[in-house]
Amino acid sequence: MSAFSRFTSLSASLPSSVPFVGPEAIERNRQLDIKARIGANESGFGPAPSVVDAMRKAATETWMYADPENFELREALAIHHGISRGNIAIGNGVDGLLGEIVRLVVEPGTPVVTSFGGYPTFNYHVAGYGGRLVTTPYLDDHENLDGLLDLVKKENAPLVYFANPDNPMGSWWDASEVLTFAKALPETCLLVLDEAYCETAPESAVPSVRAMIGMPNVLRMRTFSKAYGLAGARVGYAIGTLGNAQAFDKIRNHFGMPRISIAAALAALKDQAYLRDVVKRIANARERISTIARQNGLSPLPSATNFVTIDCHKDGVYAKAIVDGLMDHGVFIRMPGVEPLNRCIRVSAAPDAKLDLFADALPKVLKALS
Amino acid sequence: MSAFSRFTSLSASLPSSVPFVGPEAIERNRQLDIKARIGANESGFGPAPSVVDAMRKAATETWMYADPENFELREALAIHHGISRGNIAIGNGVDGLLGEIVRLVVEPGTPVVTSFGGYPTFNYHVAGYGGRLVTTPYLDDHENLDGLLDLVKKENAPLVYFANPDNPMGSWWDASEVLTFAKALPETCLLVLDEAYCETAPESAVPSVRAMIGMPNVLRMRTFSKAYGLAGARVGYAIGTLGNAQAFDKIRNHFGMPRISIAAALAALKDQAYLRDVVKRIANARERISTIARQNGLSPLPSATNFVTIDCHKDGVYAKAIVDGLMDHGVFIRMPGVEPLNRCIRVSAAPDAKLDLFADALPKVLKALS
Repeated sequence: MSAFSRFTSLSASLPSSVPFVGPEAIERNRQLDIKARIGANESGFGPAPSVVDAMRKAATETWMYADPENFELREALAIHHGISRGNIAIGNGVDGLLGEIVRLVVEPGTPVVTSFGGYPTFNYHVAGYGGRLVTTPYLDDHENLDGLLDLVKKENAPLVYFANPDNPMGSWWDASEVLTFAKALPETCLLVLDEAYCETAPESAVPSVRAMIGMPNVLRMRTFSKAYGLAGARVGYAIGTLGNAQAFDKIRNHFGMPRISIAAALAALKDQAYLRDVVKRIANARERISTIARQNGLSPLPSATNFVTIDCHKDGVYAKAIVDGLMDHGVFIRMPGVEPLNRCIRVSAAPDAKLDLFADALPKVLKALS
Repeated sequence: MSAFSRFTSLSASLPSSVPFVGPEAIERNRQLDIKARIGANESGFGPAPSVVDAMRKAATETWMYADPENFELREALAIHHGISRGNIAIGNGVDGLLGEIVRLVVEPGTPVVTSFGGYPTFNYHVAGYGGRLVTTPYLDDHENLDGLLDLVKKENAPLVYFANPDNPMGSWWDASEVLTFAKALPETCLLVLDEAYCETAPESAVPSVRAMIGMPNVLRMRTFSKAYGLAGARVGYAIGTLGNAQAFDKIRNHFGMPRISIAAALAALKDQAYLRDVVKRIANARERISTIARQNGLSPLPSATNFVTIDCHKDGVYAKAIVDGLMDHGVFIRMPGVEPLNRCIRVSAAPDAKLDLFADALPKVLKALS
């Protein structure tokens, strides 16, 4: 192999892998065109028109680096959440922030706790820093809070990942249970609470920002990629204590945020009317996806996210055949990666025209498989 | 402090620092408005109109993640350079790529060679991974290739940084000397050849891409931030062997590139006519900056970049007073950070209206200091 001979032994040991194969790669590899892109939990409803306008205006400013302190966006987020600007760190989406958190905490061999089948990109970062993943299975399609807590204690782990609402299952815990879990964790374990989908969740599922703002062992992750419809902008933020938010400044790529993305996030945050509206449309789309599933003899799981996970009542081989079969019709969806979650497929909320294609293709695919 | 108690000892030991204070922070801290932003080596000439159009069109696609394989951009760059797509890795600007390279090579204590006064962001990343920086001084305002080579051998260093053309001095070496240096390096040392400014350099200063494409101990860095006028888009790329380009896939944030930025880079690469034109305008602006400097009794250094470094014939305190004095007039420039380079100030090429402000303010500032 034509690689440099002195990469670190950790680097040399890692596979050149991607946590998710992108829809574009699937199109290239299978020589198919995607007509309904409803697999990556992006928002087909898009960002607000006001946000598109803001991006277009900012295009002429792209010759300038963005402010490395991200002052304006942090200030706007602080006001939005009723906290201090110093409680917020900005990053290249939750994915980028997760990499930074793992770097701050994980050394080769460090035990890290997550759910078996949880977010692959977190696992990717843990592996990338040489951490040792220890997992507990989902319980009734929910992340198992007692199991996570037991594992943290057993392993004396300094880091635990928990998504609420959850991806890939769409399930959630009530705020009180999230708080109880956070408070039960030893102070020596940092909770990464991934709330990428919190905007589409029932209010009762999301602890108030103030409820955990004083806890030095909690970092909450938010993003503009989901309900705000800005996946391609790559803007996420972490909420934590002053000391924890500032810790990102030790290692982050200070000049790493794109200028248009910051403008987009600022505009998106301002347009809460659009957010409220799109959250309703996402809820309606969830209903429609669930109805389509039931009409085809499948069982939609309750969802607090912008997608619906659908139990196909068989194994991972069967679910994979549905995913592949839908792709033959230009319908891109995804599915959980491990048992027993992989009896399911996962369909993202989208405008009716896209769900029409799903509704049309699904019975054909199921029939072909029967 | 309200930080988590179990950050790694390396993380805990790092300062929360930024390699460069941004112009926005200077505005906030000094309560001054910047009227001429000619300090960050951005291109005030901006990207091509065709690129602005492409960004505006892509705004409506921002609900989608970018292709994690960056296939289309790598393909276009491969064709542009006459190499394989597999020779190219995409990242969040050279800054982002440098962080990834350092991560691939550096462990706590690893010696890393660079020039004393060289690019601070590289040093920041080395410190961030616990590396031990060893430096050799500039020689006549050029990076000292013999000095770098000696230090690499003495320290058995696995990584050396060298920018050609150089920032902050604007100096350069001819392609033949760069090649001789690269070939003289032990195979156990990876050369990071930062060519962020290569588009504005004389052709004779830039080795052909093919000349080093087969060397497993060379990675060349390019960017759309300088001549292409897209600093705010954060798109850079590394050119290297297949094995080295693929090494980035082990650790990078695969879904980290903004969709609009990719569209901008593709459009910029297509519009080579604009690039040729803007390179001429940058050359003219360098001439004008040099003339202004001479008219004020200062000495511009020869430059192959989009900025001119100006010898102010005194010490760092004096140069700093000029930088601060210019800022009082709304003229933002920068200066090298260490002796003896910090006898200089550094002014970015820009449209005449901005250089008018510099020409107007400089004599006033110098007079006030005399």
